[in-house]
Amino acid sequence: MSKENIPYKIYLSEDELPKQWYNVRADMKKKPAPLLNPATGKPVTAKELGAVFCDELVKQELDDTTPYIDIPEEILGFYKMYRPSPLVRAYCLEKALDTPAKIYYKFEGNNTSGSHKLNSAIAQAYYAKKQGLKGVTTETGAGQWGTALSMACSYFDLDCKVYMVKVSYEQKPFRREVMRTYGASVTPSPSMTTEVGKKILAEFPDTNGSLGCAISEAVEAATTSEGYRYVLGSVLSQVLLHQTVIGLETKTAMDKYGIKPDVIIGCAGGGSNLGGLIAPFMGEKLRGEANYKIVAVEPASCPSLTRGVYAYDFCDTGKVCPLQKMYTLGSGFMPSANHAGGLRYHGMSSILSELYDQGLMEATSVEQTAVFEAAQKFARVEGILPAPESSHAIKAAIDEALKCKETGEEKTILFGLTGTGYFDMYAYAAYNDGKMSDYIPTDEELQKSIANLPKID
Amino acid sequence: MSKENIPYKIYLSEDELPKQWYNVRADMKKKPAPLLNPATGKPVTAKELGAVFCDELVKQELDDTTPYIDIPEEILGFYKMYRPSPLVRAYCLEKALDTPAKIYYKFEGNNTSGSHKLNSAIAQAYYAKKQGLKGVTTETGAGQWGTALSMACSYFDLDCKVYMVKVSYEQKPFRREVMRTYGASVTPSPSMTTEVGKKILAEFPDTNGSLGCAISEAVEAATTSEGYRYVLGSVLSQVLLHQTVIGLETKTAMDKYGIKPDVIIGCAGGGSNLGGLIAPFMGEKLRGEANYKIVAVEPASCPSLTRGVYAYDFCDTGKVCPLQKMYTLGSGFMPSANHAGGLRYHGMSSILSELYDQGLMEATSVEQTAVFEAAQKFARVEGILPAPESSHAIKAAIDEALKCKETGEEKTILFGLTGTGYFDMYAYAAYNDGKMSDYIPTDEELQKSIANLPKID
Repeated sequence: MSKENIPYKIYLSEDELPKQWYNVRADMKKKPAPLLNPATGKPVTAKELGAVFCDELVKQELDDTTPYIDIPEEILGFYKMYRPSPLVRAYCLEKALDTPAKIYYKFEGNNTSGSHKLNSAIAQAYYAKKQGLKGVTTETGAGQWGTALSMACSYFDLDCKVYMVKVSYEQKPFRREVMRTYGASVTPSPSMTTEVGKKILAEFPDTNGSLGCAISEAVEAATTSEGYRYVLGSVLSQVLLHQTVIGLETKTAMDKYGIKPDVIIGCAGGGSNLGGLIAPFMGEKLRGEANYKIVAVEPASCPSLTRGVYAYDFCDTGKVCPLQKMYTLGSGFMPSANHAGGLRYHGMSSILSELYDQGLMEATSVEQTAVFEAAQKFARVEGILPAPESSHAIKAAIDEALKCKETGEEKTILFGLTGTGYFDMYAYAAYNDGKMSDYIPTDEELQKSIANLPKID
Repeated sequence: MSKENIPYKIYLSEDELPKQWYNVRADMKKKPAPLLNPATGKPVTAKELGAVFCDELVKQELDDTTPYIDIPEEILGFYKMYRPSPLVRAYCLEKALDTPAKIYYKFEGNNTSGSHKLNSAIAQAYYAKKQGLKGVTTETGAGQWGTALSMACSYFDLDCKVYMVKVSYEQKPFRREVMRTYGASVTPSPSMTTEVGKKILAEFPDTNGSLGCAISEAVEAATTSEGYRYVLGSVLSQVLLHQTVIGLETKTAMDKYGIKPDVIIGCAGGGSNLGGLIAPFMGEKLRGEANYKIVAVEPASCPSLTRGVYAYDFCDTGKVCPLQKMYTLGSGFMPSANHAGGLRYHGMSSILSELYDQGLMEATSVEQTAVFEAAQKFARVEGILPAPESSHAIKAAIDEALKCKETGEEKTILFGLTGTGYFDMYAYAAYNDGKMSDYIPTDEELQKSIANLPKID
């Protein structure tokens, strides 16, 4: 199909929207390893998980055989408020790069949460409501996930308790206020509302807080309050399942216009966006129906796929969650203050880890200053100010397109533009002022952190 | 057509997008009064205006007879990056209000500038580029217009000098950084870069700056630099012309689904969004083809239509621009610190002023706390966190829908949702903390300010 026939933005009509999520595990011959109970070392049971997560979500977490799972009507209704997201042909970026490559991006930032996180937040809130719960608890760092969850809980009239890392609560008040506007209670963590918070404050009264501590508080608040469960915005297989709405919309739109991507690129922190984007394409690959080059892009400062090990580890620094087999830098790994907060996670989704281990996808890491350079270039020609996280994918897509310029190949490149950077202007200011720094952990640092992995037989 | 057949969001396809702007003045029997040269008291000539504005924009400003003006290909190309904007059926808001009314809103916030301002910014940047200019200058308060202009200039590789009110420059760094990311130079005003700035700083070294002062600096910078012109984001008839893309898309989408609005509502500061939204509907009204109730909503703190006088006045506090006949509170009127920065303007578009004077549209004013209450309600059910400016229209639309609930009328209400509130979280924080105050100027204050209007025979 000629350049002229593809619109700048492809929007599916409402009747073309996916009605089911796709569970890529069903098509994997070798499945991701099961979650383990850290106390027994045995695969965690539905009953054990049910104390922390909603029943229906536990079912989704453990189901690795059902290929398609119906999206409930209520969730489809909410999706219609901000979906379909556009699949954009980056004509202006192609022109600026003078590349023969055709670049497409699926843009998930056109909603108030500012990212794809809302796709899973609304699902998790729905199942909590359906189970008759009063509310949910969660932790948030910079606030993307907390914002998405507060929007979802507001829609289903569900109580939403967010534990926000204290330093972010104080220094990044904007997302905090978005959450409050949607009716969430936002507590700086560590706090005096939980036993674990009190204990940490007694020991370190001046602490800035950490994500690990906020997770521990959120889990305690859920398991000690009647009618509450804990929810999480990435890493889990249930989250990747909900995020497949991204990939399914993308595939439908591409099929409609006869477009076949050669390369699919996404940023990867916990893996929810990448897992969601690639799922239906990976499905074809697993079934031997098509082949795609699939690339996970991670920050050089937190390189779990490219420099981590594939082993059982804790999902949280507080070590209260089940053990998961994944590519990890060790749950005690403290990433440097990289501005892409959403990518500062020591591990990786077990699904993506297994696919990577089987050689079905690649991974690369990029440095922060180069990422912001790509972000600025993209913003200036495509008009959208991207989130630092998303800009990792932009950087890799630009590199791929420039390679095409050298070789003359007319590759079709697809990448996930997960969100906008409107709440990341301190990071952009650092870049604009030439004060951004790059940091790559040394081998010694990584070895030290990886040495503390739990011992599993 | 039944409720079920109207999608949540109506997106026009690219070939349905307007190819011409609509000049509503062509259908007005009594035209808006001409701009006057303050020195001579005579209608300003194209040559005089050409010293300040681009030639093609001067032509558009003075043309009150040509009904349709072609949108240049280059601008259509840029529009395609973020347009069409969706026309949204507010099903969730209707349900929450339990109203028989059908509510639609045209959402202009899905672009990085966060508002409709980009529609005119790109046009003004294009004509400046076409004229072979090096760059443009402008002023900005909170930064919406400056952001839109910096994006537009970046696209056409045009220099962009923004004079930003000093207190905003210092206290609201986020939009400043967005502008810098798009390559604009942002100068806190008053500055030492202009004669007028130096003079003001000599007299008031500790001043916070004001929009009036920033306009004066921007105009001086444009008229004293080779290859520069000054651009303005609202009030002018050329700006309303560009903004008709909003109304034209809306009308095409409504016609396609057989929807006819009974009431059309928009917030009004300088009038660019309202003027753009209502233009094609007002055209039908002027030609006697249809009737609509059209309502301008202004803040009670800055009520130019509802409490001002219809007279010639300066468009700027610095009194450097031509005189315009409009509803005004006097160019010396200092609005209270209302958070809806975009509505803190002492006057109103001459087109809207004349239409209002002829009784073709109505006006109402609303208080700030009630506006944020409406904003919060809207955000929670419709998912979009609205700009404070846009929320004035939401408040009026909700009131209209609640009236329908009382009377049982199934009216169709259309309102303009001009933008998002992501950079207005300090205002939301004040509301969330119960610290928002309302302010209505006294009759005495208004009389005092209006008494200083220029004397025109």
